[in-house]
Amino acid sequence: MISSSKPRAVVLLSGGLDSATCLAIAQQKYDCYALSFAYGQRHNSELAAAARLAQALGAKEHRVVNIDLGGIGGSALTDTSIAVPEQASLGIPVTYVPARNTVFLAFALAFAEVIKAEAIVIGVNAVDYSGYPDCRPEYIAAFQKLAQLATKSGVEGVTLTIETPLLHLSKADIIKQGLLLGVDYALTVSCYQADLDGKACGKCDSCRLRREGFLAAGLADPTRYR
Amino acid sequence: MISSSKPRAVVLLSGGLDSATCLAIAQQKYDCYALSFAYGQRHNSELAAAARLAQALGAKEHRVVNIDLGGIGGSALTDTSIAVPEQASLGIPVTYVPARNTVFLAFALAFAEVIKAEAIVIGVNAVDYSGYPDCRPEYIAAFQKLAQLATKSGVEGVTLTIETPLLHLSKADIIKQGLLLGVDYALTVSCYQADLDGKACGKCDSCRLRREGFLAAGLADPTRYR
Repeated sequence: MISSSKPRAVVLLSGGLDSATCLAIAQQKYDCYALSFAYGQRHNSELAAAARLAQALGAKEHRVVNIDLGGIGGSALTDTSIAVPEQASLGIPVTYVPARNTVFLAFALAFAEVIKAEAIVIGVNAVDYSGYPDCRPEYIAAFQKLAQLATKSGVEGVTLTIETPLLHLSKADIIKQGLLLGVDYALTVSCYQADLDGKACGKCDSCRLRREGFLAAGLADPTRYR
Repeated sequence: MISSSKPRAVVLLSGGLDSATCLAIAQQKYDCYALSFAYGQRHNSELAAAARLAQALGAKEHRVVNIDLGGIGGSALTDTSIAVPEQASLGIPVTYVPARNTVFLAFALAFAEVIKAEAIVIGVNAVDYSGYPDCRPEYIAAFQKLAQLATKSGVEGVTLTIETPLLHLSKADIIKQGLLLGVDYALTVSCYQADLDGKACGKCDSCRLRREGFLAAGLADPTRYR
């Protein structure tokens, strides 16, 4: 019996529906190293979900990095003085965390260089993207260009790709694809203000997008509401 | 008397010679918000130096963000199992921290967005750049492009520039310019393995570049060696 010789990828895993699907997709061609962040977010139960998902989906490793985005402030997700809205908003919402994906991808880049990964996989989505500027395709392309210039391995000619397998999928299509790959969505937590047990509010933008996704896919919604 | 109406800048301040000079230069046209990182580096005395410098040079605020680069590993500066070399090396040295400037600039970008800064100022240097890929001009240009796409303010048309006032200066010229602006280099710590009191080893790459800079400038070296 020979050991696995798949290339390696760093997969950003929040514990939500999108990143769980991303991990399942990435597992098909990579040995996956899941990376999550403890960043003072209100929805810390996501981290427990991420750990369960990494194990259930067979990641080689799950690493949690503590970062201090709360110290920077400026978002309803890290600053408890700003309320999470319970209805859809126009424009960029207050749940936007300044430069969040840039910070996450920067750490993923560091981890990728250390473990000699060929790819970073991130579950951004341009369809249901909720108005976040750092989920757009042109942003991802700019980060890939930066990554090539930023690292020792890039200078030595190794190409690192930033893969976004969900970029053009609707929430319904994401769910259908994940179910085909065996993702147990009852393990995922999407709610911006989930309780400690991972139960969802059912009211925030993220809950709304998720519920609409299951409805549009014509599938039962396994979300645990409180 | 009217209050200050200078635009704001985030200045990355390590506590070393270069970033101290950067802060002094940036103070001439900006209200400066200094940003330092506690990242498990061996040279923690740099943080104490950064605090002294921020105060001495008149920064509006000095913020220290805790980050977990040690958890990612891969460098002599964050991983105590890798020795700091005591002679000049060819190529990219083991003191290279994977994706460090990308991580630092990502946090600076978040901070800049929160305080509505017009610039991020970073003391990278392409002359004495020690072989780090993320100190090159093409890297900085790629980050500026990314920043424009990454943020809510960028989407709304606000331009954030990444300024590198030291980029093409020799170490000697950096020191001469800093002295003209009143920088007290006795406050700065450059050594990769400074002791808790900030005293330098005199042997590492960083000590070597610093000593050669004072020599080339024909100026007295105020570094406190142990």
